[in-house]
Amino acid sequence: MELAKVIELKESILENNDQDAQVLRDELKEKKICLINLMSSPGSGKTTTLLALNEYFKGKIRWGVMEADIDSSVDAQTMLDAGVPSVQLHTGGMCHLDADMTRQGIRAMESHIAEKSDSEKSGLDLLFLENIGNLVCPAEFDTGAALNMTILSVPEGDDKPAKYPLMYEVADLLVVNKIDALAVFDFDKERMERDVLTRNPDMKIFYISALTGEGVEELASYLIEKTKEWNA
Amino acid sequence: MELAKVIELKESILENNDQDAQVLRDELKEKKICLINLMSSPGSGKTTTLLALNEYFKGKIRWGVMEADIDSSVDAQTMLDAGVPSVQLHTGGMCHLDADMTRQGIRAMESHIAEKSDSEKSGLDLLFLENIGNLVCPAEFDTGAALNMTILSVPEGDDKPAKYPLMYEVADLLVVNKIDALAVFDFDKERMERDVLTRNPDMKIFYISALTGEGVEELASYLIEKTKEWNA
Repeated sequence: MELAKVIELKESILENNDQDAQVLRDELKEKKICLINLMSSPGSGKTTTLLALNEYFKGKIRWGVMEADIDSSVDAQTMLDAGVPSVQLHTGGMCHLDADMTRQGIRAMESHIAEKSDSEKSGLDLLFLENIGNLVCPAEFDTGAALNMTILSVPEGDDKPAKYPLMYEVADLLVVNKIDALAVFDFDKERMERDVLTRNPDMKIFYISALTGEGVEELASYLIEKTKEWNA
Repeated sequence: MELAKVIELKESILENNDQDAQVLRDELKEKKICLINLMSSPGSGKTTTLLALNEYFKGKIRWGVMEADIDSSVDAQTMLDAGVPSVQLHTGGMCHLDADMTRQGIRAMESHIAEKSDSEKSGLDLLFLENIGNLVCPAEFDTGAALNMTILSVPEGDDKPAKYPLMYEVADLLVVNKIDALAVFDFDKERMERDVLTRNPDMKIFYISALTGEGVEELASYLIEKTKEWNA
C-alpha cells in the first residue's frame, strides 16, 4: 500500500498575498491546471464529497487533491486509497493557507505526480485544495485558485451565510451537502438561498448527498465544464 | 421587546495574553463569577445547548451569555427573548477572542445587568462566553475562563478530535450534541472517546440532544456544581 506523503508547510514571508495569489493563478492558467479551493466548517463532508465526485471524474479528467490539515494525514490516505493522486499538507497549527503555502503544496503534488509518471498519469487538469475546516480564516486569503467552492452541510443550519458572510461572498460555488438528512433537521432552503444571494448574486448552488450520491453527477459535470473552460 | 445590545470589540494591544488571562481569571474569582468559554465548529448547537440549559438553570443560579459573532446579532437576541441576560460581541472579522476582548465583553455585560438591576437580577454566578464557531483559533487563546467547554455534534463525525487536537487538549468538558441523530450518521463513540482521552485523560464527557432535551439535566447539574465550587 502506498503511504500518503506529508509536507510540512512553511509560513509565508511575503507581505502581499493578493499579488502573490494573482501570480500563482497566472502560472496555473499557463500550465492548464484548474485549482479549486474547497472550504467549509469541520465535518461538512469535504473529503466525502471529493470521493463521490471521483466516480464521475474517472476517465474524464486527470485530477488530484492536496489535503490540508493541522496535524493528521487521514484524508490524503483516504484519497490515495481511492486511487486519486494526493498529498497531505500540514499547516503546523495555522488556520488557513495563503498563496505561498498553496504553491508549496503544488510543488509537492507535482513531484508526487512525476514520481509515478506514465503516459496516462502525467499532468493534472484539475487540482483541489481541501483547506482547513474553518468558516472564518480561509475566506480571508486568496490561494490563487481559479474557483472558490464552499460546502454547507444541512445539520450546520440555514443561518451560516448570515453568521459567516465573508465565506459566502468569496465563494463562487456553494454545495449544500447531507440533503439525505433534511428530514431530521430544521433547514429552511429559501432563507439560506436568500441570505446567500443577497451577498453574492452570482453564487451557483448545488444540493447533494455525498453519502447517497444524489446530485453529485450534476455537480461533477459542472466542475468538468469549468475545468475545460479554464484550461481552454 | 428589548433589543440586544451590540458591542464592537477592539483588537487587543497587549502582548502577553496568557498573563492577561490569568489576571482576568483572578478578578472573576474575586467577583465570584464563573466564566465558561464555550467553543465548537459552526452549527454544532452552542446557542441551542444554552437555551436547553436555561430550563434547568432558572431559579437555581443567576446566569448570562456573551454571544460573540463576526457580524450578526441573532444569538444574543435569541437568548434575550428567552429571558437570559445577554449582549452581542462583534469581533469585526476576527476568528477568536483573547482575554482583553473578553474583558471588554464582561464590562458591557455588567453595564447591561446594572441597567436592569433589581434585587433578583443583580450580579451573576455564571457567565458564558459563546466564542466564534471555529475549532482552530479559539483554542489558541486563553480567555480567562474558569472552564473551557467544547461541543462536538454527531453529524460532524467522530474524527474531529484527531483532526483538531488542540481544541480537545485545552477543553475541560466535551459535550457531544445531536445524539438524536446517531441513527442517521456513522459515529463511532468508542473511537472518538479513545482519541479524546489519549490527548486529555481528564476530559469530562457528556452526551446530549439539545433538541429533545436528553442528557441536558445531568449537564446542567454538573455546571451548577462547578459554578458553586468556583464561587465558594
